[in-house]
Amino acid sequence: MAQMEVGVLGATGTVGQQFVRLLDQHPWFKLTWLAGSERSEGKRYADAAPWRLSTPIPTESADKIVQAPVPGQGPKLVFSALDAAVAGELEAAFAAAGHIVVSNARNYRMEADVPLLVPEVNPEHLGLVPLQSTRGWKGSIVTNPNCSTVFLAMALAPLRQFNLRQVMVTTLQAVSGAGYPGVPSLDILGNVVPFIGGEEEKIESETKRILGSLRSENGKNAVVPHGVTISAQTTRVPVIDGHTESISVSIDQGVTIEDVKQALMTFRGRPQDQRLPSAPCHPIVYLPEQNRPQPRLDVDRGNGMTVTIGRLRPCSVLGYKFIALGHNTVRGAAGAALLNAELMQSEGVL
Amino acid sequence: MAQMEVGVLGATGTVGQQFVRLLDQHPWFKLTWLAGSERSEGKRYADAAPWRLSTPIPTESADKIVQAPVPGQGPKLVFSALDAAVAGELEAAFAAAGHIVVSNARNYRMEADVPLLVPEVNPEHLGLVPLQSTRGWKGSIVTNPNCSTVFLAMALAPLRQFNLRQVMVTTLQAVSGAGYPGVPSLDILGNVVPFIGGEEEKIESETKRILGSLRSENGKNAVVPHGVTISAQTTRVPVIDGHTESISVSIDQGVTIEDVKQALMTFRGRPQDQRLPSAPCHPIVYLPEQNRPQPRLDVDRGNGMTVTIGRLRPCSVLGYKFIALGHNTVRGAAGAALLNAELMQSEGVL
Amino acid sequence: MAQMEVGVLGATGTVGQQFVRLLDQHPWFKLTWLAGSERSEGKRYADAAPWRLSTPIPTESADKIVQAPVPGQGPKLVFSALDAAVAGELEAAFAAAGHIVVSNARNYRMEADVPLLVPEVNPEHLGLVPLQSTRGWKGSIVTNPNCSTVFLAMALAPLRQFNLRQVMVTTLQAVSGAGYPGVPSLDILGNVVPFIGGEEEKIESETKRILGSLRSENGKNAVVPHGVTISAQTTRVPVIDGHTESISVSIDQGVTIEDVKQALMTFRGRPQDQRLPSAPCHPIVYLPEQNRPQPRLDVDRGNGMTVTIGRLRPCSVLGYKFIALGHNTVRGAAGAALLNAELMQSEGVL
Amino acid sequence: MAQMEVGVLGATGTVGQQFVRLLDQHPWFKLTWLAGSERSEGKRYADAAPWRLSTPIPTESADKIVQAPVPGQGPKLVFSALDAAVAGELEAAFAAAGHIVVSNARNYRMEADVPLLVPEVNPEHLGLVPLQSTRGWKGSIVTNPNCSTVFLAMALAPLRQFNLRQVMVTTLQAVSGAGYPGVPSLDILGNVVPFIGGEEEKIESETKRILGSLRSENGKNAVVPHGVTISAQTTRVPVIDGHTESISVSIDQGVTIEDVKQALMTFRGRPQDQRLPSAPCHPIVYLPEQNRPQPRLDVDRGNGMTVTIGRLRPCSVLGYKFIALGHNTVRGAAGAALLNAELMQSEGVL
Repeated sequence: MAQMEVGVLGATGTVGQQFVRLLDQHPWFKLTWLAGSERSEGKRYADAAPWRLSTPIPTESADKIVQAPVPGQGPKLVFSALDAAVAGELEAAFAAAGHIVVSNARNYRMEADVPLLVPEVNPEHLGLVPLQSTRGWKGSIVTNPNCSTVFLAMALAPLRQFNLRQVMVTTLQAVSGAGYPGVPSLDILGNVVPFIGGEEEKIESETKRILGSLRSENGKNAVVPHGVTISAQTTRVPVIDGHTESISVSIDQGVTIEDVKQALMTFRGRPQDQRLPSAPCHPIVYLPEQNRPQPRLDVDRGNGMTVTIGRLRPCSVLGYKFIALGHNTVRGAAGAALLNAELMQSEGVL
Repeated sequence: MAQMEVGVLGATGTVGQQFVRLLDQHPWFKLTWLAGSERSEGKRYADAAPWRLSTPIPTESADKIVQAPVPGQGPKLVFSALDAAVAGELEAAFAAAGHIVVSNARNYRMEADVPLLVPEVNPEHLGLVPLQSTRGWKGSIVTNPNCSTVFLAMALAPLRQFNLRQVMVTTLQAVSGAGYPGVPSLDILGNVVPFIGGEEEKIESETKRILGSLRSENGKNAVVPHGVTISAQTTRVPVIDGHTESISVSIDQGVTIEDVKQALMTFRGRPQDQRLPSAPCHPIVYLPEQNRPQPRLDVDRGNGMTVTIGRLRPCSVLGYKFIALGHNTVRGAAGAALLNAELMQSEGVL
Repeated sequence: MAQMEVGVLGATGTVGQQFVRLLDQHPWFKLTWLAGSERSEGKRYADAAPWRLSTPIPTESADKIVQAPVPGQGPKLVFSALDAAVAGELEAAFAAAGHIVVSNARNYRMEADVPLLVPEVNPEHLGLVPLQSTRGWKGSIVTNPNCSTVFLAMALAPLRQFNLRQVMVTTLQAVSGAGYPGVPSLDILGNVVPFIGGEEEKIESETKRILGSLRSENGKNAVVPHGVTISAQTTRVPVIDGHTESISVSIDQGVTIEDVKQALMTFRGRPQDQRLPSAPCHPIVYLPEQNRPQPRLDVDRGNGMTVTIGRLRPCSVLGYKFIALGHNTVRGAAGAALLNAELMQSEGVL
Repeated sequence: MAQMEVGVLGATGTVGQQFVRLLDQHPWFKLTWLAGSERSEGKRYADAAPWRLSTPIPTESADKIVQAPVPGQGPKLVFSALDAAVAGELEAAFAAAGHIVVSNARNYRMEADVPLLVPEVNPEHLGLVPLQSTRGWKGSIVTNPNCSTVFLAMALAPLRQFNLRQVMVTTLQAVSGAGYPGVPSLDILGNVVPFIGGEEEKIESETKRILGSLRSENGKNAVVPHGVTISAQTTRVPVIDGHTESISVSIDQGVTIEDVKQALMTFRGRPQDQRLPSAPCHPIVYLPEQNRPQPRLDVDRGNGMTVTIGRLRPCSVLGYKFIALGHNTVRGAAGAALLNAELMQSEGVL
């Protein structure tokens, strides 16, 4: 199979760098086009991007010249690591010009005709894409959720069968989620900041959409959000990578702790069935130790694509409670988009 | 008023050091007796205690010789910073010998005849003390709660009037709560550990006892625990001092956010009425900024005796949610015991 | 004695906030005027300043309206916490208009007619001030050194008597030295950054000027820099407040370790003789413990105005080596300027 | 080539775990024997070792039963991660019984007949091994240096040609160097500890031995230490992995900065010539960026076996100064010993 050429919009930022890292040596996609803001345009990528990852910058990308983000230029498939401030207009322009935009930005996530995908959870939401033609776009936009949302949605997906009704979540989020320069060190060294702008709203609304079902109404596909009620409190903690989530759920009485554990451990989806290149063998790994998962020890499992869960036990208020952890810039951002693209390729919609 | 002589059991540990710091220049109590384990006995206090506080060791205590913890020796009033492993036996022996033991240890907290006090919340539980005479003790034991419990109990006390029914709490706890050497740096630098042994059980049971009411049954006082259901998840974060708590509560419908805020802000208790030396003017301070409270900025309010609360807003699952913060080794340990002793002095039961 | 009114230029930044904190309840000075950039002008100070200190914002200043920095307005004595980018022009304009500008900015530190003061070390350099009249200024500018320089200069001052010839210093600097937002958390959490722009040059040149002597040449005062050779390497570490310095010095052979220790411990200056309000009793405290000084335990000594030193021992290359520590935003910035102003007041030159 | 069976003494500790990780899938060695203390003996390795690495425990080792460290049992080649408290006696017993002990412990490093090896620097010191037969040992002991020493020795080795005379070094060391539980978090969070017991002495003496030359005197091999004078100050900083070193050197005048840079960049040794499995292509990588090397970004280069250097520039006191960084538990411990064993295998002395 010939490799498909791909590009990255917003390639110099934190998430853009993860795209560049993850696309290096990718079996299906070949990264040939890096686009950045005016400030970066025309520079060598290595000079334009303040590389903050602990693996060296891929040599093939290091010497590429950063391009202006001009719709119609660059490959058909472009990954978007754009900032929300510019993603709205720019992604639409690229979609209109015929590009398939696989985006990590939040701008189109809640649009009725745009899939908000977690490939293991709701691959069928890809069925929304054809609706976008009514916008007059020759291409399309597909999105992945906010970082904290991905891990929550994956942890809840296997529990839908038990009549999931209520969810409480408190997050302890890593600083890399805020980009670069992002969180000032004076704010977070030895500290907790109990607020992340817009984050709680995104968790509460996006998760319901992801867990929702695709229905055909009057011949048109639409997503009916899941009926679960979700309440989130989000905090920032001095961790580099890895969002920890303290979760309580109310499900049907009579479901045993062993039922829940089995549901989590045996959870699989289309990425596993189709052996997509970035899919972890186990989308969820359950850790039996009483003090796990922990960011420093578990965040890189499955190359950062696995959600680890532990401490499942009864919750006297809601039913069950547990801890979940995911890598916020991999499974929660660039890796999520990449898996979306792999799913689309595998489904033949690229 | 002449100063009363006091002593500290377990004076060399983390909580013991806080006692020594807080008792320095105390208007009512004069620290004259420092007791430690065999390892410390006979040494200068400054040599025996690995002082970890950011204020210098008080000069008066630095040169004192650490004594063996022999019941009957030392002043009548002794503060206990003993480790739970030895507190059970040793505190009983001191109480039997006629000492009033104001303890931070967990051993006697849930005993039917021992007050588990937060002076602003349940000063009337002191009424349990006379029951201890049936143990054959000439003295008595009075306890303060586990650190995370104090802050939760104080935040919930003003909400009892609204028919408090359910509470969910996720804690983000500082490392000083684990004593010294305590948490290894390899475990917590840039990390979150989602487990603290025994902590969740203590929060769930102690809080109900503190919020409970003192009843007289068959001429004997007893505490009837509050009926609230509490579910806790506890985590350790890389913070030196200050436990942050993410709390959701279910109370009567119809209670407005303004009602709750007023209840928190106007909360006062006997320590404020009686102007006890260690009592903060405001046991609870409500911070209006959207990203507060934070350990680094707020933990020292009221000399570490104030609980700060912020971000009160509706919770779609339970009713209301908010963030609370307290200083775990001051209001959550040594300062709590000191305020207990001041209350007892003020009530004339010393 | 009536209090003198004072103002602060650049009052909303990190150093500006330290000025506001240190001037609260000051016995000699009354803070009546807070000036900030266009962005802050006209706002309440509490709203304009992102307060990052662990003590609450002083209530008197909180409600003041931030003024435009217009020369001629505000009190005669103004402290400058201005950024170097604007301090050059603005401080000159204030001096020209008759203000006495006690500045923390670096712009005028190395000017031949501007004192670069550490009051314990070179108070006589105040003798440069009259030279500024030739600039046509009605007022004047007096400066304090860069933060790392203050601690080094204070540690070296007592060693001048031993024929100080060579100094090697490696610094481990706190993030508060870079202001706010300053160092991104992604750069420094669990990390060391072995570079701070311009810092090494400042340490090497400023220290020699401070240790230099005031000479009268052709009837004009001038500072002759000290002949010591200094080589610095500067690093940033994940510490909030407190710069640690690893120092080696070459002095005359025959000087014993006890001589050096005595020189450090007995070091006093005019601020101590004249009991200036912000002067610590001991400008240098020598700690005998083998693992001190440490930022977390020692940075607040003398209210942040004391330099702590420890681990003095032979250095096989240069002669002696030791560790020094100082509070970078107090003794290394706002506290340094405040002590300068107190010295000037005490000397009658305000 | 058949794989050689190897064992690990002290397999459950921090360094022992690195041995287990690095030996997993090793092309030449097969790890078949894990020995631990009485506390671990008889347990599954996964249960006995508090695994603290961010890669999962190798499955093959996880299920092995930890053995008692009985000389004569286990494979001929054993790696020692023993604590110094027990290594002296136990390693000798293993050597006497015919084992080749490739040790990370400090006990035999300075013995006249024991090689203290850095394979790129002094492979010829292996010539000391035959002398050990006079101890009556059937086997032998070979050691690697203390972690900070390795990086310094590697950085200095290419400078010997320039008549290296004096070295000043200040280290900023990671907490993993102290093992587990090691450094208490209360000591190091947001702090610097300017003391590491015994570390400075080891750096000063071991480095001279490593850089020394093997001479034959009266038919017996001996190492003549290098004549360089070294002075070290060592500090602990809140970093997980990676020791940073601030180094100044005095070498011959006339050697240009470009000469030094070339010497560092072109440095190679026998491990590179012989393409040993754990040898990095470049033992030293010079980073041109002005703010590198940094632990978080550079510590894993060459799988943790590369020493990165940056910021080479003139030092006004000694001549040149620069920053070096190495991975303390890989190149500074287990990886160092592994490379020693690979060198021995390649030289035919196993």
